Amino acid sequence: MTSERRPSLAVVGATGAVGTVLLGLLSSRRDVWGEIRLVASARSAGRTLTVRGEPAEVVALREEAFDGIDVAVFDVPDPVAAQWAPIAAAKGVVVVDNSAVFRPAEDVPLVVPEVNAPAARIRPRGIVASPNCTVLTLVNGLAALHSEYGLTELAVASYQAASDAGQRGVDTLREQIRQVAGTGVGEQTGDLRAVVTEHGPFPAPLALNAVPWSGSARADGWSSEELGLRDQPRKILGLPDLRVFATCVRIPVVTGHSLAVHAVFEREVTRARAQEILREAPGVVLFDNPEAGEFPTPNDVVGTDPTWVGRVRRSLDDPTALDLFLCGDNLRKGAALNIVQIAELVAAELTPAG
Amino acid sequence: MTSERRPSLAVVGATGAVGTVLLGLLSSRRDVWGEIRLVASARSAGRTLTVRGEPAEVVALREEAFDGIDVAVFDVPDPVAAQWAPIAAAKGVVVVDNSAVFRPAEDVPLVVPEVNAPAARIRPRGIVASPNCTVLTLVNGLAALHSEYGLTELAVASYQAASDAGQRGVDTLREQIRQVAGTGVGEQTGDLRAVVTEHGPFPAPLALNAVPWSGSARADGWSSEELGLRDQPRKILGLPDLRVFATCVRIPVVTGHSLAVHAVFEREVTRARAQEILREAPGVVLFDNPEAGEFPTPNDVVGTDPTWVGRVRRSLDDPTALDLFLCGDNLRKGAALNIVQIAELVAAELTPAG
Repeated sequence: MTSERRPSLAVVGATGAVGTVLLGLLSSRRDVWGEIRLVASARSAGRTLTVRGEPAEVVALREEAFDGIDVAVFDVPDPVAAQWAPIAAAKGVVVVDNSAVFRPAEDVPLVVPEVNAPAARIRPRGIVASPNCTVLTLVNGLAALHSEYGLTELAVASYQAASDAGQRGVDTLREQIRQVAGTGVGEQTGDLRAVVTEHGPFPAPLALNAVPWSGSARADGWSSEELGLRDQPRKILGLPDLRVFATCVRIPVVTGHSLAVHAVFEREVTRARAQEILREAPGVVLFDNPEAGEFPTPNDVVGTDPTWVGRVRRSLDDPTALDLFLCGDNLRKGAALNIVQIAELVAAELTPAG
Repeated sequence: MTSERRPSLAVVGATGAVGTVLLGLLSSRRDVWGEIRLVASARSAGRTLTVRGEPAEVVALREEAFDGIDVAVFDVPDPVAAQWAPIAAAKGVVVVDNSAVFRPAEDVPLVVPEVNAPAARIRPRGIVASPNCTVLTLVNGLAALHSEYGLTELAVASYQAASDAGQRGVDTLREQIRQVAGTGVGEQTGDLRAVVTEHGPFPAPLALNAVPWSGSARADGWSSEELGLRDQPRKILGLPDLRVFATCVRIPVVTGHSLAVHAVFEREVTRARAQEILREAPGVVLFDNPEAGEFPTPNDVVGTDPTWVGRVRRSLDDPTALDLFLCGDNLRKGAALNIVQIAELVAAELTPAG
């Protein structure tokens, strides 16, 4: 391509929950793109969506959909990504993928632009992976503290929203809330299961409940989500020996992931300095004055880009540790925004300065 | 008293949320009591409640209410307990108190009958304290593992129900659920706060949200609830140096507290042996087969007595640690049941065998 032409972008999975947020971001951020092509399953092809204020017809996912495309962002189910990302890459397209398929691969960088942007330049397979939404909230919130203090250990408990199970997750929770409203559910054993009969993508009723399971089953009682919270931060932060202990729990929130984090560092910490670091960290907002009711909640951060950090405390029994509470919009920085940011990094690289 | 007479019991706070569960327990457990006298604020005096299938009139809290009483259980606000427990004790009544007032006192035992029953016999002030509901779930779930492996450290994140803020907490959550049902709340910043205007006892809207604050403010950013999760297990387990890192969060559940726990021990653990210990532990139910959808959820344990333990995993980066998820009914074992169990211990002591 020449310096006159702006890079072209394909959005694969344009009609999904993350895709919708993605098109909104592409319409509101500084526009670096030439053509933006919307791609989805054959079932959705032919629909007209709006991007950058203009109507755009959705085309079906097939090899020709990548003709003339420089960068393709993928938010599709794992099997679709496994099949189609290599096909696009083989045509010379730089693929930014949000599935779980390529995250563990040694020859695929896993990138959070605020944390390890240079890694996006080295992509032997033409693919860059974006981390899982829970990981993004965690890594984005802690990277600056790691730079100062040197992270050694994390104990993490998640409070995950329905929307990272997609639109079906959101619809299921909304229907369950409608079913329990006005009832006495929560007074005795089994009353929730009597009222809520459709669990959707969740393994138990979610309204007025907490479900300690997210992802798929792995060995020894672990879930894929919990292993991801260990493997992905290790890869992004370049800390292969980082000790991580995670329990992932879904709660009845529509959008917005939260994490309670106990973080241990190499060096002694102070609360005041930790707050100062977080106040200045890119992509982070410190919101931490609980006596004045100031702490992040998932519902207050919906629709915002940063990771919000509050409840910052130096651990009482370990001067090298902090206890914190983080919230982030799992559809924005947790997915669509990080993908767009990676795509923009690649676009800047493809577009010679001047 | 003579061995012919069964001990008499006063229930102080009989009309509250915990009091209601208490009367139900007194009606369903093996009956060891003579007279049961119901006591409440002057405002509630004169009401008639049912206990052991018989109507009983509520009398006002004043010194004469303790005449002829052997044991009094208190579930009242802290200032009421601070004033009245010593008055009752001065009359020779053994007080079992569920407020926060006496829990830290060196001359007041803090008792979980399954864990440290003998401590209830030594009560210099005539008062025995019952732990906070979150602590009860935690200590009850972990005591047997501690006996085998020797507990050294806990990182705890709580998922607390509305009902430990009393009936007002429950009513507030139910009204908020009614308000958000059928709306699109959770799509954008501020939409929950626009629909839910009454926060009741909580510092932020609770429906479709998570609120990382419970209790009152303490130094250095900590909440009283978080400090209680450190101080009370130390006292109950007799481990003054136990390292505890806690973050307490309220979620939109009516009843049933949950805890994600990372527990470190002196000795190496195995998943199979930990499950076996929990299967045999008194007051504990092991429910741990996530691939078959078997893990405890708060709504499934409402109305049951034990602490339910699931998601048992040996920590990946520490062979001496376990990660677990615990659930317990905060109104039963978390409050009323533990109080009744302590009162029964005292009753057995007051009633010479044979």
